Amino acid sequence: MSGASVQAVVAAGGAEVSRLMDRVEQRMAQLAASHGALLARHAGETITAGGKRLRPLLVCLAAGVPAPEREGLVRAAVAVELIHGATLVHDDVLDGASLRRGRPTVVAAAGRGLATATGDLLFSRAFAELAAGGSVQAVRVLSRASSELATGELMQRADAWRAGVGIERYLERCRLKTAVLFKAACELGALEGGDWVGALGEFGERIGVAFQILDDVLDVSGPPERTGKPRGADLLDGTVTLPLILARGSDQELAALDLRTVRTPELAAGVCERIAATGALTAAKQRALELVREAKLALPELGDRHRAALELVADGVVERYA
Amino acid sequence: MSGASVQAVVAAGGAEVSRLMDRVEQRMAQLAASHGALLARHAGETITAGGKRLRPLLVCLAAGVPAPEREGLVRAAVAVELIHGATLVHDDVLDGASLRRGRPTVVAAAGRGLATATGDLLFSRAFAELAAGGSVQAVRVLSRASSELATGELMQRADAWRAGVGIERYLERCRLKTAVLFKAACELGALEGGDWVGALGEFGERIGVAFQILDDVLDVSGPPERTGKPRGADLLDGTVTLPLILARGSDQELAALDLRTVRTPELAAGVCERIAATGALTAAKQRALELVREAKLALPELGDRHRAALELVADGVVERYA
Repeated sequence: MSGASVQAVVAAGGAEVSRLMDRVEQRMAQLAASHGALLARHAGETITAGGKRLRPLLVCLAAGVPAPEREGLVRAAVAVELIHGATLVHDDVLDGASLRRGRPTVVAAAGRGLATATGDLLFSRAFAELAAGGSVQAVRVLSRASSELATGELMQRADAWRAGVGIERYLERCRLKTAVLFKAACELGALEGGDWVGALGEFGERIGVAFQILDDVLDVSGPPERTGKPRGADLLDGTVTLPLILARGSDQELAALDLRTVRTPELAAGVCERIAATGALTAAKQRALELVREAKLALPELGDRHRAALELVADGVVERYA
Repeated sequence: MSGASVQAVVAAGGAEVSRLMDRVEQRMAQLAASHGALLARHAGETITAGGKRLRPLLVCLAAGVPAPEREGLVRAAVAVELIHGATLVHDDVLDGASLRRGRPTVVAAAGRGLATATGDLLFSRAFAELAAGGSVQAVRVLSRASSELATGELMQRADAWRAGVGIERYLERCRLKTAVLFKAACELGALEGGDWVGALGEFGERIGVAFQILDDVLDVSGPPERTGKPRGADLLDGTVTLPLILARGSDQELAALDLRTVRTPELAAGVCERIAATGALTAAKQRALELVREAKLALPELGDRHRAALELVADGVVERYA
């Protein structure tokens, strides 16, 4: 989602959402400063470094437009972003990634030990934040999502280098590793708003899968200067995504490719070119757009402003670098 | 704590505690089987592999003797053990440990990626378990403890190889990396039991620090065939513990020692001998015994059987391989 689309969504959400998002930032900064030098340095940098705050925004919007300006909503939004931050820190440990959002990753700056503990701390703080807000139902939603995120990560590791991964399994992985947190964000917001928990959860899940598909398209299409990582990073990790799955259907050489032989960024870039040449990127993006369309169609009967804001978010997740 | 002391404590807790601990095992086995092949293999092995279940036992005992045989108590006990399991899996990732409780560690069997995700899954399942039980207060207790555990781990990493670590900082580290979970176990049990949350929390914290001190003594004293790890493993990790801190006061050569030069198990064993020769192991163990004595003295006015069972646990934590 581009910075401009985020701004458009915040504008559509009105002054309440804008103020809530300011409070989310303030609370994140408070948390970053509250654990002494150790957290201030590592977790603190992670949680204040930003990103688009898309998940907190979903929490606020799911609560309604105009959104109820409640502390519980701020805490739920912060909790979701902390879980997101924790998974990023741990993913970077696993991938040995050196840059994230243009800054050194925790693992690059501080080593595996501190980075793993930093991720654990962010996880724990997320539940502390939510529990301080007061609803055990909210804790259930977030702990289920965070279990599923870990299961998704396990699934991705188990699937690594396996050529036979099909579309169904790929989509289930998208759901587990990404969409469940979008779903939880919507459910947590809806719990605070008092309505539509189930329907908005489904909305979140659909746009979450679309978000992940687009992420996987961008990994193949680049450009690196926009995505912040070299093309084909997934291929180098052995992660089979939708563009490759689709491209294999029409390119015999790709169908026969052993991913373990794709060992250098140059080789990966070459495979990306081949995938793009089959038209698989357009087809994959089409799939994401369909999910977004379905998500919007299935929205329940909300007020006009509420619906408009959610539709903007849905469009936004597939408009990155369009 | 030896297996025999655990059995004595369970006996002192009576048939209710015995039945509760059976239910804890059943629930752990259920959880191990509930996540499909991935969790069954890694997290499942972790949570069914055992250990003494000291923390679940504390949860049950803190609730009273006879203990109330409630589902919430079983879930709280399981949640605490899951958090403990998560930290073990992540610690093994950090240390690259190959054996735990005589079996291959998750990181040794499945690699860093799967092990990190497995730990995350156990963390998440812990909160899911507790939230299913129903009390937001319980979630607060556990999330605070798990934040502190991660802070303790960060502190230990930050202190690694630093000769200047003193007793105060060492004790604070023991509190954060170990005692807070003993404390949480007692608080969660007391919440279910309905009384003495604060006092039993303090009891748990004191015996938790004593437990960690004894652990650190055993790292220096061995014998490896009882502790399951080579003598001086902490020294090889750069972790400064009480025996070394005390020994430095009376041995100039130890005081001048640069831990980074202690690179082999043979060198570490030599340093262990030097530490033992100063009498520091006896002094450190004395400190643990004092904490246990204080913990018992500060117990509130409980029924006789309740007090007796808790006193047995307190004695047990410093009686390992005595």
